Amino acid sequence: MNWQPVDAYIKNNLNKSISELAVLVAQPSVSAKHEGLQECALLAAEMLKKRGFSVEISPTSGAPVVFAERKGRSEKTLLFYNHYDVQPAEPLELWNSPPFELVEKDGNMYGRGISDDKGHFTSRLHAIDAILATDGELPCTVKFLLEGEEETSSVHLNEYVGSHVPQLKADACVWEFGGVDEFGYPLQYLGLRGICYVELSVETANQDVHSGTGGSIFANAAWRLVWALNTLKDENENILIPGFYDDILPPSSRDRELMEALPDPAPAYKNQYGIYKFLKDTAGGADLRIQEVFEPTCTICGLTSGYQGEGSKTVLPARASAKIDFRLVPNMRPEKVLKQLREHLDAHGFSDVEITYHGGGAPSRTDPDDPFVRLVVDCAAEVYGVPMRVIPMTGGSGPNAMVQDALNIPIVTAGIGHPASQAHAPNENVKIDLYEKGARHIARILQYFGSSAD
Amino acid sequence: MNWQPVDAYIKNNLNKSISELAVLVAQPSVSAKHEGLQECALLAAEMLKKRGFSVEISPTSGAPVVFAERKGRSEKTLLFYNHYDVQPAEPLELWNSPPFELVEKDGNMYGRGISDDKGHFTSRLHAIDAILATDGELPCTVKFLLEGEEETSSVHLNEYVGSHVPQLKADACVWEFGGVDEFGYPLQYLGLRGICYVELSVETANQDVHSGTGGSIFANAAWRLVWALNTLKDENENILIPGFYDDILPPSSRDRELMEALPDPAPAYKNQYGIYKFLKDTAGGADLRIQEVFEPTCTICGLTSGYQGEGSKTVLPARASAKIDFRLVPNMRPEKVLKQLREHLDAHGFSDVEITYHGGGAPSRTDPDDPFVRLVVDCAAEVYGVPMRVIPMTGGSGPNAMVQDALNIPIVTAGIGHPASQAHAPNENVKIDLYEKGARHIARILQYFGSSAD
Repeated sequence: MNWQPVDAYIKNNLNKSISELAVLVAQPSVSAKHEGLQECALLAAEMLKKRGFSVEISPTSGAPVVFAERKGRSEKTLLFYNHYDVQPAEPLELWNSPPFELVEKDGNMYGRGISDDKGHFTSRLHAIDAILATDGELPCTVKFLLEGEEETSSVHLNEYVGSHVPQLKADACVWEFGGVDEFGYPLQYLGLRGICYVELSVETANQDVHSGTGGSIFANAAWRLVWALNTLKDENENILIPGFYDDILPPSSRDRELMEALPDPAPAYKNQYGIYKFLKDTAGGADLRIQEVFEPTCTICGLTSGYQGEGSKTVLPARASAKIDFRLVPNMRPEKVLKQLREHLDAHGFSDVEITYHGGGAPSRTDPDDPFVRLVVDCAAEVYGVPMRVIPMTGGSGPNAMVQDALNIPIVTAGIGHPASQAHAPNENVKIDLYEKGARHIARILQYFGSSAD
Repeated sequence: MNWQPVDAYIKNNLNKSISELAVLVAQPSVSAKHEGLQECALLAAEMLKKRGFSVEISPTSGAPVVFAERKGRSEKTLLFYNHYDVQPAEPLELWNSPPFELVEKDGNMYGRGISDDKGHFTSRLHAIDAILATDGELPCTVKFLLEGEEETSSVHLNEYVGSHVPQLKADACVWEFGGVDEFGYPLQYLGLRGICYVELSVETANQDVHSGTGGSIFANAAWRLVWALNTLKDENENILIPGFYDDILPPSSRDRELMEALPDPAPAYKNQYGIYKFLKDTAGGADLRIQEVFEPTCTICGLTSGYQGEGSKTVLPARASAKIDFRLVPNMRPEKVLKQLREHLDAHGFSDVEITYHGGGAPSRTDPDDPFVRLVVDCAAEVYGVPMRVIPMTGGSGPNAMVQDALNIPIVTAGIGHPASQAHAPNENVKIDLYEKGARHIARILQYFGSSAD
């Protein structure tokens, strides 16, 4: 097939797509703060309508879900999953430009959500524009499932998916993200860890106490929290909750084979984060890759208690809390971890430690030898000029499992990210060159998938 | 002696004194934030000058020290120690009135520092006014030592005291605070615990990491901190730093006798703080009083790391820190604790945990049978109509030991506080009635002390 017209369209109209992305970035949509979600959903819906999609915005108990569909030439249906919410921009002082403003500099674009996930969404729209402009019709039916709580564990997506299975029905799904590694090789991520995100909180009195008065006789919420946390994981990274590791499906020999084929991730991590070693002293290579994604975690994401300002304040805190993120590998389940955690805390005398569940989801995987995976991998080679690297499992999480369990379809990744995209961190960014390549890749996936045999 | 004219002056001019206090409260002077200290020192100095004191404001490496002196009739010299700095007002949302505004309501005055320690300072000035107005002369020489870093462990007072011993020379000292218990009995506090205030901090990377990527392979600053803290104290309140308890002088039988004579503090604490039991399940009485002040502490005053906003953020924190306050009993020394802490952390593999010393001071005690103590106790009975209760040691800290070590004089307390004064907490307050009684008590101390035999 002659890709010249499509590729030319994508190149020549890049600024139009970037302008659309700028509109989305300028609309803060921080799900953790319930900020601007409705507004951002409407902006995204408008963009889909403009392309001839029929759009439905469905309220949920949380942020609205945007569903869109446009019929195509063949009987095939491709589902895109994206999200319009973003991570909080804090710490603001570490940004080099205003987080909610698309700023171009030296071939990069900066802004909160520019990669995760607003840029992915608009680059896909851009691919669709290119096909419609050059062909007049989509090669297959295209559906978009766009949610607004991905960054807070997609707490309400299940209620939507569960009641919209016929509407969502598709033959394959392209997940929210994707991109290249530090060597420019496109990456195919075929699995996501699950997650169970909780907040542990303790209250020991109705108000803080002067530490001179209280230190010897009043319970201290911060100490209670530290002792409770300490029972969860030891210094060798062993998670101490009974039964936590019971259901784990270890990586297969095929997983290891795929991991062995990938480059060593250690140098790039060391360089980017200024570290000199990894947990458990793992040197790198396939061992590090397997540890990175096939082990469950218990990560403290935040601690808060008492006085946190400058200098000293002699206070005994009445309240303390920790945010904790458990990443789950196949076949763990968040509900089970939550139950185990409660039992564990109670067994250790920490029934005073309350658990607030901030959401979770199961892990998911797609067979690396599925025909759709092969199609996406082959298209990538055309666009990037180098083979796509297949990663059997990744460390992140998403509502992948909800969709996979409900629709039973392969889920692939294809996108615009790169290793220094700074997702979830200050100065989140995307390279314009990769934005363009991402759109070209999506255009090819649509075309070949639409015309592929069953 | 006829106290009617002095007492009448104190009563009739109360509003004048309260106006002066309002001026001081309206000047934020938060030493933890280096806020308004110079300004507040100048205001206090001006108030002393107005009363005929010769005043000297001495810069230190931190906040300035205000020293004032006015000669009196006898050869005796009484030294008042006060401080013009206050605790931070946070958490602001728990105040019922603006913290830096004196608000009167139902016989109480509210505001940050209204008790600790601005109200104590102005009530003493008010007593001096009453004596000058009725007698024309002070019965003894009066000196004021007024510092601006008491709430941050008086880090620079030692450098001042050390180089001003002849100037500070006195026969006795009235310390910054004092007041009544929940039954209205005036209290005599004869000792202060020492303090060693530190911040522990850990940095594991040059930036936060996405918890999905990093959880299994990157060190987590929050976990490092939790594990390090956990080695400091166990759930039974045993401080685990080797040698920590070595130098402790246990309470004497005289200490226990004095504690036995005091009422049970348990009911008031339970009621005020909404708690139902104390550490180590101590029921109350002298046992609780002894535990409260004769045991050293290791109090977490604050914890901070990672995301602390609403909801969830999936981040692996690169930085974490804890503020910790060790209270020291006789004969512990802060420098020694600091050294032991460093050695302990290193021995447990936490050389990555940095210690920032925010200041400290040694514990101090005054003999309960000193003649000046008896004079102050007798004066109190006249003013309050009930006997003063003698407390051999208290839980708080102050630069008491610096003054006592340098001048070798008895140090007593006499003041305006009450158990719900909320020092260091929101809605700090003073009862106007006790403010007046405090001034009357100081007037008597001055008069009897000035005319006492050597």
